[in-house]
Amino acid sequence: MNSETTHRIAILGASGYTGAELVRLIAGHPSFEIAALSADRKAGMEMSRVFPFLRHLDLPALRRIDDVDFGSVDLIFCALPHKTSQEVIRELPSDKRIVDLSADFRLRDPDAYKLWYGNDHAAEELQAEAVYGLTEFHRDEIRTARLVAGTGCNAAAGQYALRPLIEARVVDLDEIVIDLKAAVSGAGRSLRENLLHAELSEGYHAYAAGGTHRHLGEFDQEFSRIAGREVRVQFTPHLIPANRGILVTAYVKGDPAAVFSALETAYADEPFILVTPMGELPSTRDVRGSNFCHVGVVGDRIGGRAVVVAALDNLTKGSSGQAIQNANLMLGVEETAGLMAAPVFP
Amino acid sequence: MNSETTHRIAILGASGYTGAELVRLIAGHPSFEIAALSADRKAGMEMSRVFPFLRHLDLPALRRIDDVDFGSVDLIFCALPHKTSQEVIRELPSDKRIVDLSADFRLRDPDAYKLWYGNDHAAEELQAEAVYGLTEFHRDEIRTARLVAGTGCNAAAGQYALRPLIEARVVDLDEIVIDLKAAVSGAGRSLRENLLHAELSEGYHAYAAGGTHRHLGEFDQEFSRIAGREVRVQFTPHLIPANRGILVTAYVKGDPAAVFSALETAYADEPFILVTPMGELPSTRDVRGSNFCHVGVVGDRIGGRAVVVAALDNLTKGSSGQAIQNANLMLGVEETAGLMAAPVFP
Amino acid sequence: MNSETTHRIAILGASGYTGAELVRLIAGHPSFEIAALSADRKAGMEMSRVFPFLRHLDLPALRRIDDVDFGSVDLIFCALPHKTSQEVIRELPSDKRIVDLSADFRLRDPDAYKLWYGNDHAAEELQAEAVYGLTEFHRDEIRTARLVAGTGCNAAAGQYALRPLIEARVVDLDEIVIDLKAAVSGAGRSLRENLLHAELSEGYHAYAAGGTHRHLGEFDQEFSRIAGREVRVQFTPHLIPANRGILVTAYVKGDPAAVFSALETAYADEPFILVTPMGELPSTRDVRGSNFCHVGVVGDRIGGRAVVVAALDNLTKGSSGQAIQNANLMLGVEETAGLMAAPVFP
Amino acid sequence: MNSETTHRIAILGASGYTGAELVRLIAGHPSFEIAALSADRKAGMEMSRVFPFLRHLDLPALRRIDDVDFGSVDLIFCALPHKTSQEVIRELPSDKRIVDLSADFRLRDPDAYKLWYGNDHAAEELQAEAVYGLTEFHRDEIRTARLVAGTGCNAAAGQYALRPLIEARVVDLDEIVIDLKAAVSGAGRSLRENLLHAELSEGYHAYAAGGTHRHLGEFDQEFSRIAGREVRVQFTPHLIPANRGILVTAYVKGDPAAVFSALETAYADEPFILVTPMGELPSTRDVRGSNFCHVGVVGDRIGGRAVVVAALDNLTKGSSGQAIQNANLMLGVEETAGLMAAPVFP
Repeated sequence: MNSETTHRIAILGASGYTGAELVRLIAGHPSFEIAALSADRKAGMEMSRVFPFLRHLDLPALRRIDDVDFGSVDLIFCALPHKTSQEVIRELPSDKRIVDLSADFRLRDPDAYKLWYGNDHAAEELQAEAVYGLTEFHRDEIRTARLVAGTGCNAAAGQYALRPLIEARVVDLDEIVIDLKAAVSGAGRSLRENLLHAELSEGYHAYAAGGTHRHLGEFDQEFSRIAGREVRVQFTPHLIPANRGILVTAYVKGDPAAVFSALETAYADEPFILVTPMGELPSTRDVRGSNFCHVGVVGDRIGGRAVVVAALDNLTKGSSGQAIQNANLMLGVEETAGLMAAPVFP
Repeated sequence: MNSETTHRIAILGASGYTGAELVRLIAGHPSFEIAALSADRKAGMEMSRVFPFLRHLDLPALRRIDDVDFGSVDLIFCALPHKTSQEVIRELPSDKRIVDLSADFRLRDPDAYKLWYGNDHAAEELQAEAVYGLTEFHRDEIRTARLVAGTGCNAAAGQYALRPLIEARVVDLDEIVIDLKAAVSGAGRSLRENLLHAELSEGYHAYAAGGTHRHLGEFDQEFSRIAGREVRVQFTPHLIPANRGILVTAYVKGDPAAVFSALETAYADEPFILVTPMGELPSTRDVRGSNFCHVGVVGDRIGGRAVVVAALDNLTKGSSGQAIQNANLMLGVEETAGLMAAPVFP
Repeated sequence: MNSETTHRIAILGASGYTGAELVRLIAGHPSFEIAALSADRKAGMEMSRVFPFLRHLDLPALRRIDDVDFGSVDLIFCALPHKTSQEVIRELPSDKRIVDLSADFRLRDPDAYKLWYGNDHAAEELQAEAVYGLTEFHRDEIRTARLVAGTGCNAAAGQYALRPLIEARVVDLDEIVIDLKAAVSGAGRSLRENLLHAELSEGYHAYAAGGTHRHLGEFDQEFSRIAGREVRVQFTPHLIPANRGILVTAYVKGDPAAVFSALETAYADEPFILVTPMGELPSTRDVRGSNFCHVGVVGDRIGGRAVVVAALDNLTKGSSGQAIQNANLMLGVEETAGLMAAPVFP
Repeated sequence: MNSETTHRIAILGASGYTGAELVRLIAGHPSFEIAALSADRKAGMEMSRVFPFLRHLDLPALRRIDDVDFGSVDLIFCALPHKTSQEVIRELPSDKRIVDLSADFRLRDPDAYKLWYGNDHAAEELQAEAVYGLTEFHRDEIRTARLVAGTGCNAAAGQYALRPLIEARVVDLDEIVIDLKAAVSGAGRSLRENLLHAELSEGYHAYAAGGTHRHLGEFDQEFSRIAGREVRVQFTPHLIPANRGILVTAYVKGDPAAVFSALETAYADEPFILVTPMGELPSTRDVRGSNFCHVGVVGDRIGGRAVVVAALDNLTKGSSGQAIQNANLMLGVEETAGLMAAPVFP
């Protein structure tokens, strides 16, 4: 609010949902100012034509990346498609700080990257340098990073449910099942039949089942790292007829009280991660449009088993809100700046 | 239409969703005729006032149960609330055949009933006599039963995914997790805040988590019976912003090929249970308004694990369609009569 | 089922929503049999891959139009895109009876066609011969027609609300306003951003406002013809976040009692058009998936004005159901055959 | 933002949607602080139990109105049900400034009030004093008012579309038709069958048609006052399957260019009312969760007619956002304080 410095921000790939969400959030940020917006295929258009909901804002017109003047820019958000991102970031001025919202720098291991994404990485040196952007668990590295890799939205939700349990060693590492229900905006503004209202609104289904969803690469990397051994979880995402929201239902083997305690301890001082009282589970309706994540635990009737549920908004805490939280750290701004708006309900 | 005999049908509790669904289906049944409709609190009203979508039909007005003339009725559908049903059925003429859609006669064991429903059963003798109405697995008993207990809609969906696997002994009986996503009509026409469009349409959540949902009583009873030992599954239902549909995602430990083969074998001759090709999973959008259930299997990347998904319409195959399928058997009509209408998509 | 003759049907353009709806309805038709299904770009595919909800049916595979053997076909449904339809129909065997679901033969006047569709008609001679397919008002011509032009779904809904009023001269012809709310399946399976669930489900808007929607050509043609003078209505369609349904709210100047009486008289013997009691207005929820259309009237507090509301399902009564109703007449089958299924509610 | 004074706010009736929306907005307001929350039937409960989406806020517990200490309160928002509100406000300390969100003080004329609401007013003296709270048109009175009456949400939307046209005398005052499409949260958290997801989500309908909706009283009062003669519009609201949003489609007779010009002129300096370019119409998706209202005009093909469309969020600009905008004026705070958050899309 009263910060002395204004930080100038560029958003590359501003014509997609995460780009628009960045603009929405920055419009309410006390010390960020949008200096440039790019969208190669819509260069020359006003942002309000692509996204009429931003009509009230005075924004720079969209331009091609090559036409962006990065000289006066303090931080760049890359909201470009996977693969495009690495090629673009490789060419950006090397003194600019970058938060990438694509999948390109989430996996550190080039082999893991190739396994999940099918191609060689075009910027392996940056891959090694990039910091994994799950803010609550990588704060110190993020503060000093030049390049932060935003997490997958599903990967974020699953990790909020499970990381403290793995760190605290309160669950069986070989018996974790993540059943995830994702709203449709996570699929982006892409035109596919199963994203049409007529097909989705009264139909829901599993996709990328059997261990083929790319966000598994992040679970593998992060869970194994903190466990100090290989951890492989079972993961089935489902597409749900709602716009925003991810609900993770994680099935774990462990003492429910210990599970709850591990979560409470881990998140006691977190401004955005709220643990619901033991036995109460969160709903996506209570985090919509916000940077909050609610996490809850219920013990099962079968002894030694628990269900952990986490809910967040895929576009905010799962993507663009997380990106701004990371940018706040990188620029020395208060971590919560621009992110404390309450969810929109109903 | 052209069958020689017309069977006269009474529906008790016709002012709820399952009652209305029975009327909808019977309107297209070749040899059923609606003789009486009851709804105590709406007695005297025309059905078309309670359900304008039935306006085109010439139906008897709603009346009190006490005012129904059962003399000329061949079969009674009871679509009454739990607990009310047992009290009403106890008093019905003992020569009438009955399909009950409530939970009252699903559990054979009085102790199990009391455990899950909290009260002593008011008609224990009928409880012992009632046949569990999951048609495909109890056909012979249903044909000759006087009283058939319609299954829980969630219980039906879960059993279609899992019974053949338990019977064929291809999965670990102690490691079954059922994550279920239910559309809202399963909650009936009851007035609760979380069923309001404003609260549900952009929010979804788990409910009755931790092993407290009453349909677990059916899983316990049926799975244990066919396994010949106690089986306890983990079960978390979720409420999804859609009107009709249940999607079961069952996590099992067993060889995926054996799992698929067990399902294919079990359902090879079933008119309503369709197994999708190995690796393809069903969606609720493809069964809406119909008596079909789609079942599919995907093997997990972790060896010896599989995901089984079943989709059905809770009001049709999960409730009123099942009831008519059972009534067909009881009355010697072709089992599929009145039930082969294609799903409504989109 | 019991009809002596089975009529063999071909559906051209079976991979769109109206094609699929034709298959759905014909699957329950007592005397129609699907002989051929075409979809040029999906030739060779099984229908169940394009539309898994039809998985239970034994259907011919999709083929190219050129590969269809029309020899044994009794009637052809053309569910092709506009403009394509006229080119295909021109080449079909001239002894085959055809129901076209596209816009190509709705307007008789070549100039009017060019005005609304922007191109010269490729089959003007057929345009002159085609019969406008609003069944209730063109029955005799339809019975003997070779080519019937299915109406626009919006045009059908508006005409059910207004034709009897114009014929009975009970409303001011220069003061008709049609405010229409259309569900999204009317836009077909086309991939457009504003049809995405994420953008539509919580947003609604007017489109083609100001008198630019092509279905106005049908209103102009039909209303002027029956009035014996030029009639021009004001018409604003809106896109609503629902899958099926059209709701017409027509504002007219005239005596409400006379308006109601004109509708009641006109539709007294119609099996599918149901007039609700004076003062009660219909809802789309009560016609979903069915061939019924509900029409109601309310008088306004301003004397001499009334609101007429009509509700129908755009894919059924507004398109494929209408097409089958017309085919029934053309083939001498009972008009209601295969079309009396109750709506699906909820 | 950094204003020196903090204003202490009480919200009476905090357990409904408008109460919760007030809390949501005040949580982001730079100089408002919530001093008390009341809800008689939920007294003693934490707000986070009634509305878990507010879990992150440190809020006073709900209490009975009688237990609220108004001594230190600067302004009271009354979000109570109609009729209750007048009885409560009558008893509030007479030196407190009040913004009432109910219908109780919208109509100045006691006879008009009785006509539309059916009862005598319990606080006629306050009725005369109250200022009608459509901010943009009553700013000066609102600044000095003790009691401001928030408008009906539908009434607000209709007036934003039409007031400048009536003031500028560019439309025929006897030929105005307002066709309105309202999302469901406008009906509040009340439990009614037609608000259930199962019944609403795939069904939409007109309600209170024929001139019986109470917001007509506001149109009559305001339009007649500014026209200097009696104005009676035709008005049909519809319930649409969406959570937030009102879309007004107003049919007027007048020169489209003059209509557009009147709107542009009237709203040129308004921060919240945005006129879209001539020929472009707004959508509810673009104002969701915000205090913005978009207004657009299209000329009809029939000369001398135009369609004016206005879109706003019923809970924000139509109710709680408007209330805060008025409170800002009353307390000498910048009018836009706490209200500039961008809409949430998608």
